Amino acid sequence: MATDVLAALRQEVLEANLAIPQVGLATLTWGNVSGIDRGAGVFVIKPSGVPYKDLTADDLVTVRLSDGAVVNGDLRPSTDTETHRCLYLAFPSIGGVTHTHSTHAVAFAQARRDIPVLGTTHADTFNGPIPVTRDLTAEECAQDYEYNTGHVIVDLLAGDDQRAVEVPAALVAGHGPFTWGASARKSLEHAIICEAVADIALHTLSLSPTAPPPPHLLNRHYTRKHGPDAYYGNPDPAVATR
Amino acid sequence: MATDVLAALRQEVLEANLAIPQVGLATLTWGNVSGIDRGAGVFVIKPSGVPYKDLTADDLVTVRLSDGAVVNGDLRPSTDTETHRCLYLAFPSIGGVTHTHSTHAVAFAQARRDIPVLGTTHADTFNGPIPVTRDLTAEECAQDYEYNTGHVIVDLLAGDDQRAVEVPAALVAGHGPFTWGASARKSLEHAIICEAVADIALHTLSLSPTAPPPPHLLNRHYTRKHGPDAYYGNPDPAVATR
Amino acid sequence: MATDVLAALRQEVLEANLAIPQVGLATLTWGNVSGIDRGAGVFVIKPSGVPYKDLTADDLVTVRLSDGAVVNGDLRPSTDTETHRCLYLAFPSIGGVTHTHSTHAVAFAQARRDIPVLGTTHADTFNGPIPVTRDLTAEECAQDYEYNTGHVIVDLLAGDDQRAVEVPAALVAGHGPFTWGASARKSLEHAIICEAVADIALHTLSLSPTAPPPPHLLNRHYTRKHGPDAYYGNPDPAVATR
Amino acid sequence: MATDVLAALRQEVLEANLAIPQVGLATLTWGNVSGIDRGAGVFVIKPSGVPYKDLTADDLVTVRLSDGAVVNGDLRPSTDTETHRCLYLAFPSIGGVTHTHSTHAVAFAQARRDIPVLGTTHADTFNGPIPVTRDLTAEECAQDYEYNTGHVIVDLLAGDDQRAVEVPAALVAGHGPFTWGASARKSLEHAIICEAVADIALHTLSLSPTAPPPPHLLNRHYTRKHGPDAYYGNPDPAVATR
Repeated sequence: MATDVLAALRQEVLEANLAIPQVGLATLTWGNVSGIDRGAGVFVIKPSGVPYKDLTADDLVTVRLSDGAVVNGDLRPSTDTETHRCLYLAFPSIGGVTHTHSTHAVAFAQARRDIPVLGTTHADTFNGPIPVTRDLTAEECAQDYEYNTGHVIVDLLAGDDQRAVEVPAALVAGHGPFTWGASARKSLEHAIICEAVADIALHTLSLSPTAPPPPHLLNRHYTRKHGPDAYYGNPDPAVATR
Repeated sequence: MATDVLAALRQEVLEANLAIPQVGLATLTWGNVSGIDRGAGVFVIKPSGVPYKDLTADDLVTVRLSDGAVVNGDLRPSTDTETHRCLYLAFPSIGGVTHTHSTHAVAFAQARRDIPVLGTTHADTFNGPIPVTRDLTAEECAQDYEYNTGHVIVDLLAGDDQRAVEVPAALVAGHGPFTWGASARKSLEHAIICEAVADIALHTLSLSPTAPPPPHLLNRHYTRKHGPDAYYGNPDPAVATR
Repeated sequence: MATDVLAALRQEVLEANLAIPQVGLATLTWGNVSGIDRGAGVFVIKPSGVPYKDLTADDLVTVRLSDGAVVNGDLRPSTDTETHRCLYLAFPSIGGVTHTHSTHAVAFAQARRDIPVLGTTHADTFNGPIPVTRDLTAEECAQDYEYNTGHVIVDLLAGDDQRAVEVPAALVAGHGPFTWGASARKSLEHAIICEAVADIALHTLSLSPTAPPPPHLLNRHYTRKHGPDAYYGNPDPAVATR
Repeated sequence: MATDVLAALRQEVLEANLAIPQVGLATLTWGNVSGIDRGAGVFVIKPSGVPYKDLTADDLVTVRLSDGAVVNGDLRPSTDTETHRCLYLAFPSIGGVTHTHSTHAVAFAQARRDIPVLGTTHADTFNGPIPVTRDLTAEECAQDYEYNTGHVIVDLLAGDDQRAVEVPAALVAGHGPFTWGASARKSLEHAIICEAVADIALHTLSLSPTAPPPPHLLNRHYTRKHGPDAYYGNPDPAVATR
């Protein structure tokens, strides 16, 4: 049974990784998605530096949540593995993590600016701006750099799991976006939306440097898709997952 | 006979919805097209939150114009259904409605700026700027939000059917474009053109913040494609519809 | 023999028209290419408003150069036919004409700004800025509008065939680019390059509002591809045409 | 054996050239990649002006490093061949060279601005800004123009092979990017990354005209991928090369 769960997880993580170049979020081998099996205490992640076109389920690496040890797989896991692990440890609601270098989200990360909430496209998914972290210190870069990359995100959200659920994305300053969600697939969806809203925000800011829409509009959009009063989508699981 | 009409309508609405991602106007499941059979008093619309790649004619939902009741279909209709219904009720000339979150049109909607008429590409289709609505009030967001989203468009056009025919598009402030036309297919075409002229307008404004072309040029382009003296295209219906 | 020439011309014009959407220069049915057989005194052009995906060689329309009469074809020729005819009459070196509404070139046309020579990418093909015409007058719009659209281009170049050869493109103010060349295929190539240099120029101007490169560099690039000392490409016709 | 080496080199150079349009870096026939066999004292390069879709291994031209003579091939080599040869002679670590006219990198070249290091996406590959050369003089344009195009790059790097290894790219002022690497394939990868970081940099600068990230972050990213302490990727050659 545990094996079956893990096989399904590997398949979902594979598909989410293969989707990164298909949706235009990756250059070369950049980007990675992981998904966690909290019952088994492990997560599955893309190997480091393998071209997407060659990636198979067998290439994925299984990593232990508690200490980062590789428990299955012949290849070295993504260099960003420790960032994923840090986020999984800090935020219990997270089931998947995606990291990309998508053009417009990286531009905000490099400019050290939050992606502001400028409309309903953003509010449909993110209940607030997509925030940018502080810079890592020289010490944080010298030692456990990748784990500390997760740490500045945890710092940014004050370790608050509910904030991580409501705004499932952050920009690491000078680096790029990390997104997460209830599953690997949802974390990828959030990466796609993060890039889309960054693209639209850049154009909006060029037309109108300050353009905050009314909060009641944004709140309406967030709540019609999330929480107890959500009415977007179809409840049929066969539809929801296909 | 009515059934045949409806079957043809379903097919047209299906194809128009499937075209949204093909022409690059959609992210994930965003966007929807509907088409109306005024004789039968119903319109056909995309279900809520179903991925385009899985969408079939059977998934489409038939909604009654008079009260919004679902009269056919197993799935929940698009959350934007009431907006479509409001537009159909207000403007008798409308045969189809399209809503997207296309990047450049949304940028204008978020900046609360009309898409100005800057050249013949715009004037070929739209006889004036593509206007942006006022913000919805807190009350309009709290109750019947989606119907009120249509209502602010109707307000913007003072409920004038002829204005809706001449400028078959509007931007809902802080949200995005709604377009319409004589059929579902035409409403989609207007969504494509709305996005194209928004894209070109953004570049034009970066080169020249104010660049209005002479009205006689714009008028010539609109009238050579529309109205009694139109001479664009080919009258052969086999050509026009294929 | 004349029939064979015309059959080859129709095929080239068809392929050039079909390439417009393939290279991303067209939205919907926008854009058209023609090619001329000066011996026969006719040119072949796309019909008006036919979707590219349905276009066949049989749909193309043959038009007499001297008076614009349709001499072959069941469909109405492009509304822009008279513009093509005006250019063919004014510039004897022209063998093909292309018109598009490509995004970045249209932005310059709408902003009424020449596309300046900012580097060798431009100078490889165009021996000077791509100029923008004056506005058409109200009279020129009211009568023979499409022919007058060609006329303002001829005006802009002072009817000088050699200038048309050296800078095979112009922007009609408030409208968009027309390009031409020794053949239909070359006119299409110039449309592709016109759009590419407009795109690069927009980015260049955002980085550096005035950035003229040294004339000797530009001249070197133009002359290594054009004129008696050209050494770009391969002389083998089999290579040149495949 | 030497023949086998050369056959493998031709295949790699062919694939790298064919990848240029696939990754969106080329317009028409623009762009070229070469690879060198230093043992044999020759390099293999794309012929001049041949469309990518028609390019075969047999079309590639083999050129002698010492004097630029064509030693194999029926077609004229790329007009940029002497630029490649100059770079191979100056920098012994170089195994491949790529030249493109990719949109955003050309914009920086035309604006005569270095592509600044604005984040880790850049620092992962380039250990410093991608610098822009001085203008070529009128004399350098008049005689041996293409060789001198390489010369201004060598000048820019003070002929320092180690600098060429650490920042494997330069922008020729008013022209565009040249990139290089240990192999033809790596030089192409650097062309792809050069364009990606130029694109992101343009957006970053529009959000924040000056946004230098901390040097320790950039250094960490460069050193985790390059040099003795690199830990990115997988050592398995089967993985690395597939």
